[in-house]
Parts: sequence; structure tokens; C-alpha cells
Amino acid sequence: MLTLYDMSLSGNCHKIRLLLSLLAIPYQLQPVDLRGGEQRGLEHLQRNPFGQVPVLVDDGLVIRDSQAILVYLAKRYGGEQWWQDDAYQLAQIVAWLSTAANEIFHGPALLRVHYKFGRNIDTGLAQQTTDKVLGIIDQHLQNQDWLVGDQVSIADIAIYPYLALAPEGNIDIVVYNNIIAWFKRIRALPGYVDMPGMWQE
Amino acid sequence: MLTLYDMSLSGNCHKIRLLLSLLAIPYQLQPVDLRGGEQRGLEHLQRNPFGQVPVLVDDGLVIRDSQAILVYLAKRYGGEQWWQDDAYQLAQIVAWLSTAANEIFHGPALLRVHYKFGRNIDTGLAQQTTDKVLGIIDQHLQNQDWLVGDQVSIADIAIYPYLALAPEGNIDIVVYNNIIAWFKRIRALPGYVDMPGMWQE
Repeated sequence: MLTLYDMSLSGNCHKIRLLLSLLAIPYQLQPVDLRGGEQRGLEHLQRNPFGQVPVLVDDGLVIRDSQAILVYLAKRYGGEQWWQDDAYQLAQIVAWLSTAANEIFHGPALLRVHYKFGRNIDTGLAQQTTDKVLGIIDQHLQNQDWLVGDQVSIADIAIYPYLALAPEGNIDIVVYNNIIAWFKRIRALPGYVDMPGMWQE
Repeated sequence: MLTLYDMSLSGNCHKIRLLLSLLAIPYQLQPVDLRGGEQRGLEHLQRNPFGQVPVLVDDGLVIRDSQAILVYLAKRYGGEQWWQDDAYQLAQIVAWLSTAANEIFHGPALLRVHYKFGRNIDTGLAQQTTDKVLGIIDQHLQNQDWLVGDQVSIADIAIYPYLALAPEGNIDIVVYNNIIAWFKRIRALPGYVDMPGMWQE
């Protein structure tokens, strides 16, 4: 049985909950009490020295980092639709995983942490990062339905949650028409699960 | 023939130059004039809408993002040593690629941009990120020679340059004994190439 160390309000955790649901894989949730500091306790640091969620445990194998967990699930359980064997397709997916780890985290996710949870950040810099990355993604989706190739991949799953949660970061996401159209395609996938605060039609 | 759109002082570009050299793959360098703003010109933005280097072009295929280029080269040209087929090994590599895209970039790489090139940053935050990630990596390398498994992988190549360039960011890297020992192992690899400013024994 898979165990997901989770925090319900985390968009990074939602990436994993979403892929697990799309793949119809049974798992158990193990909430980590971030407000109580459980992520900095010895037990959690042994699972992930960065003190973050999500962490996935599969039969004793421990995997940290939301992008890495997506890769693990896609490769081990996902089948051909979810894991490309072609080097160029793979590289395109990994480029979007980097964007998720860097620009999405330091843009829309950080603005949400500020406006929803009150953390002190450089809002000007986070807004600039957000405007740039949303503009690039919207342009990229102008002539294609999915971020890589002609079907949904873990690139879409890695990028989606913090874009759909953008309203909680005071981001006017509806001006990005192609992103909104892509939201609708993702929400129509069999097994899609939502999370409170996400954009609704 | 491979073409690498490159900037000589970029640690992200060095990741690619290093792996190409370790794999003994011939390629041509195409310098991009970042100070002159060439990365924001239409021609480069068509290669990479993020306006960054490196970009690799292989027979018409265009790949942005240093982590994605490492994956492409490892999968297409690297052979079994460089590209793991096991889901858990792959996931561990991808976790370090995320660390390279996030903490290494926003820690040691940003401190270097500040102290070497004068960019205005939040030095306290970058130092905090740096201290945390260097401590984790040093601890991780206490009982193993390489970041993942028992041989060098693209995880090591993705993390190495900005750690070796730490002295240019006023970071006291020599206090991290396990990192220094790992530097020596990387520098002993056949085909290793250095870059100005990197830690020297």
C-alpha cells in the first residue's frame, strides 16, 4: 500500500493526489501537521531532510519532492501514456518539471503563501515571476491542448495546481484564455479531483 | 552536430559542457550575448521563451532548461550508466534535479550573481537557503560517494557547478568536508572540464 505524507492545503501535495486519482491507484493519506512543526521533527526529517511534504512511501521506498514522485508514479504505474520513452519528449516534460520547481513555486505559489497564510515575501518579485511564467504558458497553449505532445502528461499535473489556486494569490487568472481552456480539459479528465480554492467555472 | 547556446560564465551552461565532455560528444558552442540583451531578442525567444541559456539544438530539436538538457543527453547518448530504467532510481535523480532548479538556483547561484555581478537580491534569504541545502547535501554525502546510487549520474552534474562556484558567492564551502571530497571525485572523472572561479584544491 502506498502512503502519502500530505498536507491538505498544499498544492504540491495536490499534484500527487491528482495523479494517484487519475491512475486509480489506492493509497493512504498520512497528514503532517505543518502548523505544529511536525515536518521539522526527527521522524519526518528522516523521510525528507528538506522538511517538506509531499513524501511518498511505497513498500519501504521513500521518495521526496513532488516532481520526483510524479516521475516515480508515471514510470512505475502509469503506462505508456504517462511515461515517454523518447528522449526529446522526456526532456520537454523535465523542462516543465523545472519550471514547476522554480518559477511556479517562486511566483504563484509564493503569492498564495503571502495572501492566504500571511508569510512576508518580496511581492514585487513574485508578481514579476508570475506575470512572466503565466504569459509564457498561455502563449504555449495557444496552439496545443497539453504542455507536451498531444496528450496529458505529468508536465500538466506538475504545473496545474498552483495555477488553478492562483485566485488565492490575488492573481487575475481569467485573463489567460488559453490557460482557462486548459483548466477545463484537465477538469474533464476521468478521475479528476479538485481542491478548495481552485478556480471554478 | 549539436549546438549549445551558451554563456561562458553561466554555471547552468557549464552543467551541459561538463556532461558533453564526460560523454565525449562533439558539439559547437554558440555564445549568446547576455550583457547585450541577445537573450531577449526574437530569435532567442523562439528557441526559449524564458530568455535563458543554455539551449541545446540537436538536428532541429530544440531543448531549453539545463536539467532537461541533461536528461536528453543522458537518455539519448549516455548509455546505462547515465540513464536508469528503475523508477525509484529515476525518482531520486529527479528529486536532485528539482533541488538544482529550486534551492541551488535561489541559494548559491543567486549569491554568486550578487557578489560577482552586483545584482540586488535578498542576501539573507539566499544565505539561509544556501546554508540549509549545503548542510543537507554534505550530510547526504557522508556515507555515499555520489548523490544517487553507487555511480556518478546527472544528479551530480546538475548540482556540482554552483557548489564548485560557491567561493564567488562568498560561501565558505571548505567547511563541508563531504562536499569537498565529492568535488575531488567529480574532478577525477575522465573528460572532466573546469571553469574559472571554481574551487581548487
